[in-house]
Amino acid sequence: MFAATIADVEAAAGRLAGQLIHTPLLESPLVNAACGARVLVKPEMLQHTGSFKFRGASNRVALMTPQERACGIVAWSSGNHAQAVAAVAARHGIPATIVMPADAPRAKVEGTRRYGATVRLYDRLAESREEIGADIALKTGAVIIPPYDDPHIIAGQGTAGLEVIEDVLAGGDSLDMAILGSSGGGLLAGSATAIKARSPQTQVFSSEPAGFDDLARSLASGVPERNAGGVATLCDALMAPTPGALTFPINRTLLAGGVAVTDEEVKAAMRLVYDALKLVVEPGGVTPLAAVLAGKVDAKGRTVAVVLSGGNVDPTTFAACIGA
Amino acid sequence: MFAATIADVEAAAGRLAGQLIHTPLLESPLVNAACGARVLVKPEMLQHTGSFKFRGASNRVALMTPQERACGIVAWSSGNHAQAVAAVAARHGIPATIVMPADAPRAKVEGTRRYGATVRLYDRLAESREEIGADIALKTGAVIIPPYDDPHIIAGQGTAGLEVIEDVLAGGDSLDMAILGSSGGGLLAGSATAIKARSPQTQVFSSEPAGFDDLARSLASGVPERNAGGVATLCDALMAPTPGALTFPINRTLLAGGVAVTDEEVKAAMRLVYDALKLVVEPGGVTPLAAVLAGKVDAKGRTVAVVLSGGNVDPTTFAACIGA
Repeated sequence: MFAATIADVEAAAGRLAGQLIHTPLLESPLVNAACGARVLVKPEMLQHTGSFKFRGASNRVALMTPQERACGIVAWSSGNHAQAVAAVAARHGIPATIVMPADAPRAKVEGTRRYGATVRLYDRLAESREEIGADIALKTGAVIIPPYDDPHIIAGQGTAGLEVIEDVLAGGDSLDMAILGSSGGGLLAGSATAIKARSPQTQVFSSEPAGFDDLARSLASGVPERNAGGVATLCDALMAPTPGALTFPINRTLLAGGVAVTDEEVKAAMRLVYDALKLVVEPGGVTPLAAVLAGKVDAKGRTVAVVLSGGNVDPTTFAACIGA
Repeated sequence: MFAATIADVEAAAGRLAGQLIHTPLLESPLVNAACGARVLVKPEMLQHTGSFKFRGASNRVALMTPQERACGIVAWSSGNHAQAVAAVAARHGIPATIVMPADAPRAKVEGTRRYGATVRLYDRLAESREEIGADIALKTGAVIIPPYDDPHIIAGQGTAGLEVIEDVLAGGDSLDMAILGSSGGGLLAGSATAIKARSPQTQVFSSEPAGFDDLARSLASGVPERNAGGVATLCDALMAPTPGALTFPINRTLLAGGVAVTDEEVKAAMRLVYDALKLVVEPGGVTPLAAVLAGKVDAKGRTVAVVLSGGNVDPTTFAACIGA
């Protein structure tokens, strides 16, 4: 079984020093009061391309050989991974093709294009993005950069968790709990690896949208569960159908459990972030705070870190969520 | 003539270490491309209470005697100074009364109340906030905390500029230009004092809303000019009628000039901040970036610092500004 190690995450952090934004840990008395806990917020919408996805993509691309770089990159994503791969590829002068669903948020499709990538739109119901991507890789020799099931992606995303726990410990504090959102589980697997290595007593939880809580149910049953489908969520970034083949064994070993939040709980958390922190967070980026705010985890009186994973959201969706 | 000194600003920074958030300097390739310049963004909406005003209020209150603290604080403000004074007073356990216009943005009035201050609303057209405030001070012995014409307020606001220039120089860079918004001119006077002391070749400019460009016209004529009035602006935070008695002599000595921006230019800059930086900025907080984006200053190819001074804006106004 593949297991990420703290050494992998540390190596990624060293390799990417100066390329990543070390996002701060923010604390607001208004957030603390609303949650009844000490909440440390990691604002990854301030990362390059507006989400943590830049970390993993940077780590994977940094390890490509010159020969591989000449053949280009292909990736598929509903948005944040797409923008991250496009920006990292552009930074290294590598051509990139991104396969995106035709119904992805406009902000994410346009964001990907403006970083210079070629976007291939597909029909979510009629086509398979994996097949389209594999076909491009076959014809061009392009390297596939997967969104989560890759050791270098997992280690790269883990730099977020490493920064969290290092900043907490450097401040002389201890951390009772860390909550991170999950789609494929890469951010969680890498970050839990770092957090548990540095602070074994910290409990790490996953948060997911209601109806897409495959990881929470898989953690409970011990085997990979699948979402039933047929439900909608505001959280377009968190719609993976089942836990990742590489990420799930790591998360099963390290996590204390998983929780799910409703669209209304997501919107309440977005309003709090707007009001108290002045940050733009996307629905799929706020589930950890939504979980604390809605009392889905037992955080009362404790110190809790929440990673806000991204901020790529169309203005109209954002306005509706914050009650404008 | 009163002149703030770099020693005053440094003393404030030392006094307030651990009480202020040292906001980062952010750089985005998307902002740079849109502006044709290297733009370093100081996000003061991430400061406590969502604006730089917390700096000056903290410095002034830190210097109050125990006897003064027992009598309380009174201040008047359309919003950001109000919230800052309320929060600083609460932190020190000092009762505070804030005189606010009845038509101030709801977010700012509610923000002030939730920090525990007593809010006295007044009619902007029929009453004088200075008279109401003076009357409260006379009856209660409360100390008046003015919004800008006070040496300790100026020095406190100057910590923002000090952080900017120290961070630029620590990164091994030089700074061609710094642009800061002006209402009464306290942020500018304190920050220009710090920036010019550390980097004499940096040009410092003021930015104001069109129709409220009293400082720009005063800098051009050399004497304090008054706004004609009768015009509207989105920038509720920047509506002072004339430069401050203490701040203007400082700004006249140190500034390279002043520019004005329209509401449309403000909205374009707010959209860019939303899109590229994932930050919530209020109209009156974005005028420096609006000035660069609209070509009001000669920034092409240069390194420019812009202070985004606050993010306290109602959701409906924000949504309209970002085109939702």
